[in-house]
Amino acid sequence: MASYCHRRYVSRLFQNFGKLQPKSKSQEVGLSCHSHKLMLYNDIIAQSYAGGFHMLPLGLRALEKLTHLVDEEMQAIGGQKIAMTTLAPESLWQTSGRWAAAGSELFKITDRQKHQFCLGPTHEELVTKLLANIAQVSYKQLPIKLYQITRKFRDEMAPKYGLLRGREFEMKDMYTFDSNEETALETYNGVCGAYNRLFDRLGVPYVKVAGATGIIGGSLSHEYHYFADVGQDSVLMCERKVFLTLCSKMGFAHFPTCHHKQFCATNSSNSIFMIIIFYQLNVLLCGDHELIIYIYFFLFVIHNISDFHMGCYGLGITRILQATLEALSTETGIRWPGLIAPHQIYIIPKKDGSRGEDYLTAAESLSDSLTQRRHLQGEVVIDDRMNLTIGRRQVDADRLGYPYTIILGVKALESPALYEVVETATRETTFMSKDQLMAFADQIQTI
Amino acid sequence: MASYCHRRYVSRLFQNFGKLQPKSKSQEVGLSCHSHKLMLYNDIIAQSYAGGFHMLPLGLRALEKLTHLVDEEMQAIGGQKIAMTTLAPESLWQTSGRWAAAGSELFKITDRQKHQFCLGPTHEELVTKLLANIAQVSYKQLPIKLYQITRKFRDEMAPKYGLLRGREFEMKDMYTFDSNEETALETYNGVCGAYNRLFDRLGVPYVKVAGATGIIGGSLSHEYHYFADVGQDSVLMCERKVFLTLCSKMGFAHFPTCHHKQFCATNSSNSIFMIIIFYQLNVLLCGDHELIIYIYFFLFVIHNISDFHMGCYGLGITRILQATLEALSTETGIRWPGLIAPHQIYIIPKKDGSRGEDYLTAAESLSDSLTQRRHLQGEVVIDDRMNLTIGRRQVDADRLGYPYTIILGVKALESPALYEVVETATRETTFMSKDQLMAFADQIQTI
Repeated sequence: MASYCHRRYVSRLFQNFGKLQPKSKSQEVGLSCHSHKLMLYNDIIAQSYAGGFHMLPLGLRALEKLTHLVDEEMQAIGGQKIAMTTLAPESLWQTSGRWAAAGSELFKITDRQKHQFCLGPTHEELVTKLLANIAQVSYKQLPIKLYQITRKFRDEMAPKYGLLRGREFEMKDMYTFDSNEETALETYNGVCGAYNRLFDRLGVPYVKVAGATGIIGGSLSHEYHYFADVGQDSVLMCERKVFLTLCSKMGFAHFPTCHHKQFCATNSSNSIFMIIIFYQLNVLLCGDHELIIYIYFFLFVIHNISDFHMGCYGLGITRILQATLEALSTETGIRWPGLIAPHQIYIIPKKDGSRGEDYLTAAESLSDSLTQRRHLQGEVVIDDRMNLTIGRRQVDADRLGYPYTIILGVKALESPALYEVVETATRETTFMSKDQLMAFADQIQTI
Repeated sequence: MASYCHRRYVSRLFQNFGKLQPKSKSQEVGLSCHSHKLMLYNDIIAQSYAGGFHMLPLGLRALEKLTHLVDEEMQAIGGQKIAMTTLAPESLWQTSGRWAAAGSELFKITDRQKHQFCLGPTHEELVTKLLANIAQVSYKQLPIKLYQITRKFRDEMAPKYGLLRGREFEMKDMYTFDSNEETALETYNGVCGAYNRLFDRLGVPYVKVAGATGIIGGSLSHEYHYFADVGQDSVLMCERKVFLTLCSKMGFAHFPTCHHKQFCATNSSNSIFMIIIFYQLNVLLCGDHELIIYIYFFLFVIHNISDFHMGCYGLGITRILQATLEALSTETGIRWPGLIAPHQIYIIPKKDGSRGEDYLTAAESLSDSLTQRRHLQGEVVIDDRMNLTIGRRQVDADRLGYPYTIILGVKALESPALYEVVETATRETTFMSKDQLMAFADQIQTI
């Protein structure tokens, strides 16, 4: 629909208000990682309160792309997307025993009828009640894989690192239901596969680590980690980097399957942070009271399914977003994973002068040609600050980390026209004809 | 990406658990409109608590399509999408005077540091603070149009009618900033135009009515209404149906611009419900204390913009979703606006028998051909309940309101194959060859 492909100008974009410059030094207090600083300085996010952040246009575009990517991978393994309520009745959390267990991390609220609720930090209680209320469930319908991507709430004692440890955040949580251990393990491995593909597509180096299961209980758990300096956990790797574990949570004794003798000698400890956890509850109906949400499963007896295995798979969406920036960015320049960069292409026409108008017109025409390609709709930005030199605007493009910059210099108005294309990650510069440029643009992957 | 085009089977879909039948009569208590019943019975939504609903797979697909439609229209008029926090600090709402004014409709919460927040029912306070905190704003950047589509919270005294009047709901709210009255009016008319296009594309008859501005104040306001039996408002229309007003809120005396003499004689009163409100605040810095959020605008003086006009434009997304169903559906069958139907095509292969497998295979092959078209990815469902007759499954297709049903009967296995295509809205049946069917499918509009 052509009417919906309008041009985007830097002078009109909301992130440009701060002139793309770091703000006052006083704002740096408490900003202890560079991704947090970069996101604030460049109007990717804005702080609303301690631990709560608005997503500004660039940040939200990246978040929506990441969400789409997760949707694709979850649906490829048969995940069905739902959206549960934010408010969760106290009675359910009392029944599960987590009203007290989660303690002051729960945001609690009382309505005008004096009923209590919490703001869901996770939805095991609600999803099991949802299934329990369904009239009929048969073995044939299993496994059931329900997931959502919604805002979650946790009253962190010490929120920090921006989106890495906030008090409201976007999370993907999937809940799976199987009738026996064997298929439950298949489901578990299926989700691992989806996560692997997701992280591969993001293109940021990661490791998959055997994890602890925590207060939720359960028998099996893995975490995915990015390497960075600001993390609170360390991973231990064996020499071949095949088997890993968290040294902060598990001792060597628990190291699950590494048989490489060299392990202890080379335990290369790396400071990292955790980006996700997922875990599985093996729900058996023999009255295992350690399982926090057992109470609803008696209803599955009514459904004639006597042995029920539940899996819970979380993924911190906003956390992943900032974590990729923490891993990829430089001290002064944001670097996005290509697939989720807010915009792919940044066009800089030559400065005002005798032919200033012509350069801007050429930039607009090029933008139109590019955005006629469906995969580039909304992906092109024109830096129309025509009073600034190309070099000055390149500094901004570099800081914001647009993957590709196209400079319209003198040669862009010659015949045949030549465009200067800069790949931000490699800083490689190539001159291209329009045909070459279009062929190049067709190769850019978007979501 | 072919790997992400997987087939969808009815037997695996979550909405099928209730066997597509109305549940027990006891559940009907309090269900006072048919769209609410239809959405509950057919697993479009599920109640979580009084006034709070989970969106199940079909409902969420429709909601995501509607969201996409709204995004297109908002961005076509230069809207930039953001996402503000759900929690809003008490201090801001105290400053605006709405902490007390909104009274018990606000969900209030206290964190572990004893700071108070409310769950945002709307975001005027937060968005003005966001702008006030921006380092530099110049006249050249105006108008600024920021919008979000997020979950809002309102502690309704008497939640009812499902999503029409719930306690948590999805809302689009846009906030615009202009430097003078003339451009502010242009912005206002621009948003009206976007709303008109949105409602035209949904294809459900509506009226645009001059509205009251309510506690938020402001100078100009319109509402869009659908006609239905369950509404609480009435509209008065003049004979030519050009000018309308709400009789519950405004008397004849206030009827704005109707000059048709016949008006009083024919005041055809229609029971309807309101689906949106939008309004404009003309913020003048001469100390107009009636304007609830004036306090932040002194910061715009720092930005050297002495006269500031703010517009606030709301749109109840979940409310529109159910309102369209209330307007279109029959007592027993859901009817979706075509563009936001969860799935477009429902394939029913002939029942088990000597050639049962062949029919299912043909259905799968047809589904693959259809979903290879980009606009039909995810839009095709196969009813693989092969133990049921075609007629029995048609009843379910009709109740769920899939726009198009394709029946694979005896002729579908002949050479050349013939497919029976039923258009749900008109109940028109056509036999088509595969080529004809594909040409037909290419015409189906999706978003």
